[in-house]
Amino acid sequence: MAERMGQGTICITGNIVIRASAGIGGKKEKEGPLGAYFDVTFRHDKLGQLTWEKAESTLQTVAVRTMLQKAVLDTADVDIIFAGDLLNQCISSTFGLRELGIPLLGQYGACSTMAQTLAAGAVFVDADAVIRAAAVTSSHFCSAERQFRLPIEYGGQRTPTAQWTVTGAGAALLEKGKSTDICIRHITVGRINDLQIKDANNMGAAMAPAAADTISRYLEDTHTSIFDYDLILTGDLGLVGSRLLCELMLQKDIDIAGRHQDCGCLIYDRETQDVHAGGSGCGCAASVFCSYIMQRLQRKELRNILFIATGALMSPTSSQQGESIPGIAHLLHITA
Amino acid sequence: MAERMGQGTICITGNIVIRASAGIGGKKEKEGPLGAYFDVTFRHDKLGQLTWEKAESTLQTVAVRTMLQKAVLDTADVDIIFAGDLLNQCISSTFGLRELGIPLLGQYGACSTMAQTLAAGAVFVDADAVIRAAAVTSSHFCSAERQFRLPIEYGGQRTPTAQWTVTGAGAALLEKGKSTDICIRHITVGRINDLQIKDANNMGAAMAPAAADTISRYLEDTHTSIFDYDLILTGDLGLVGSRLLCELMLQKDIDIAGRHQDCGCLIYDRETQDVHAGGSGCGCAASVFCSYIMQRLQRKELRNILFIATGALMSPTSSQQGESIPGIAHLLHITA
Repeated sequence: MAERMGQGTICITGNIVIRASAGIGGKKEKEGPLGAYFDVTFRHDKLGQLTWEKAESTLQTVAVRTMLQKAVLDTADVDIIFAGDLLNQCISSTFGLRELGIPLLGQYGACSTMAQTLAAGAVFVDADAVIRAAAVTSSHFCSAERQFRLPIEYGGQRTPTAQWTVTGAGAALLEKGKSTDICIRHITVGRINDLQIKDANNMGAAMAPAAADTISRYLEDTHTSIFDYDLILTGDLGLVGSRLLCELMLQKDIDIAGRHQDCGCLIYDRETQDVHAGGSGCGCAASVFCSYIMQRLQRKELRNILFIATGALMSPTSSQQGESIPGIAHLLHITA
Repeated sequence: MAERMGQGTICITGNIVIRASAGIGGKKEKEGPLGAYFDVTFRHDKLGQLTWEKAESTLQTVAVRTMLQKAVLDTADVDIIFAGDLLNQCISSTFGLRELGIPLLGQYGACSTMAQTLAAGAVFVDADAVIRAAAVTSSHFCSAERQFRLPIEYGGQRTPTAQWTVTGAGAALLEKGKSTDICIRHITVGRINDLQIKDANNMGAAMAPAAADTISRYLEDTHTSIFDYDLILTGDLGLVGSRLLCELMLQKDIDIAGRHQDCGCLIYDRETQDVHAGGSGCGCAASVFCSYIMQRLQRKELRNILFIATGALMSPTSSQQGESIPGIAHLLHITA
């Protein structure tokens, strides 16, 4: 049974454990500082598919299959899958998961999807509605770039605040287990935050206020302080968004700088990989959390973390119509 | 606490009631057979907004505000909102719900979204994760038509199997209550079904197999028969999809024809309103369920129904790349 601790803040009272996970990456991700941690990496952008969209779907298929293999389970052992992605109508998930035959609740949280799918799955398992839930998401540099920005062939100049969409995916399996396993303890579901940022090349700035809002609400609702946690891990704020988050938290008299890391800053080497402000996309938080971070939790190098994945809630249409870019951030408190 | 009854089939053991709901429609919907049942209708397509997309967002805002008014509640009384729509990156929900400040978990189930959001909300309330959850979705003829098909101004000829996207929205509020109230009793989460239908003007045929699959799984998992229910209500199969569903069920020796109705067939007068095979879109099931059907449940004209909303999981990009149109269907068992 779960317990309400505030508007959108939930205590997961069962021991809902992440039994297995898989992080998948592309060539650039393999060449980055976390390359050795990914379960599977692909050398070619198209993964042997005809289109980038089909390649992204394949990232999800491989993520779920690899996760099931690591858990020594079959698709019939999973009651429900929570999945989503950035492509219009979430087609990466549809076509990536089609062959699996697992009941699906499609999620849309933009780049916050890894935290969102884990949060929803944790509540469903805690409620005994399902025995096992899977959470999966992906992104692909080429499918995202051409949908949200410009044709790849155009080779458009990127601004210093721009981030590089990660070609990657992550999948995780939730079930009841022991309190000493890797457990999801609390969730804070994010609210839409809109500080009227309109620059589609500065997603970090658009999302940072949502992260600050969610972290503050969580700390308040749970009566804990930032010093209670080993790591405050954000999804894809990148360099600009991370600095802004630290500033926004300082304005609330909370200094997170010493404990904060961002998947978008971890996944690439900014000196050598020409990614400007860092990585982004659903696959950024997903691939880093489901590989590097999960492995550190398993080794007990991390024991008590907050994982906050942020999303920019916009579309090219909303931007063309003059709308701002609201952000959202969902938080998980995870112990090992 | 919920109880697992099969892969994706969940018994909601608490009395999770739909305390209030609101159905919103446009001009054509007002002129249809259910016109008098809608809580709010609008005479102009743009609802006083600059664009159709902003108009669709307004449909969601009005649906939630009207629902809250009917329940005599404020936004602070709702712990979480489950919302989604058909537009790229679910922007109707983002911009329609931005001002409310309620924690949001965005959903993507195409036209199955009303059933999906109610299902997710019911599990969260049943788990005691939240006290009150809201479920909302919308569609708009003009925003859908230009995104999925052709510019409105083009005035393209429509095939006889084509459906008319409903301009409408629905919102519902879930909380714990009495067993004599309108309660969600069971849920079956749908699986992706793909019979390789590729005609984007025949969504009913693409979605019917998913509805048949979900209904069969539900009946099997709950050991009930079709005769146990007053009404088998589908979301937007329309005329063609409804006939196909009845045929597919007959192949399983289940005759639903006498008890089956479809929101897409109910909402328009096919003789006079020129809608070809009927209504469609997230707003179809949402506006009909949240007004007409809820009112019949309140009056106890209906006491025991299955509500199955279906979705076609495609995008223009997936169709252009030669992909088929997989379907999904989520089921709710509701008593009054």
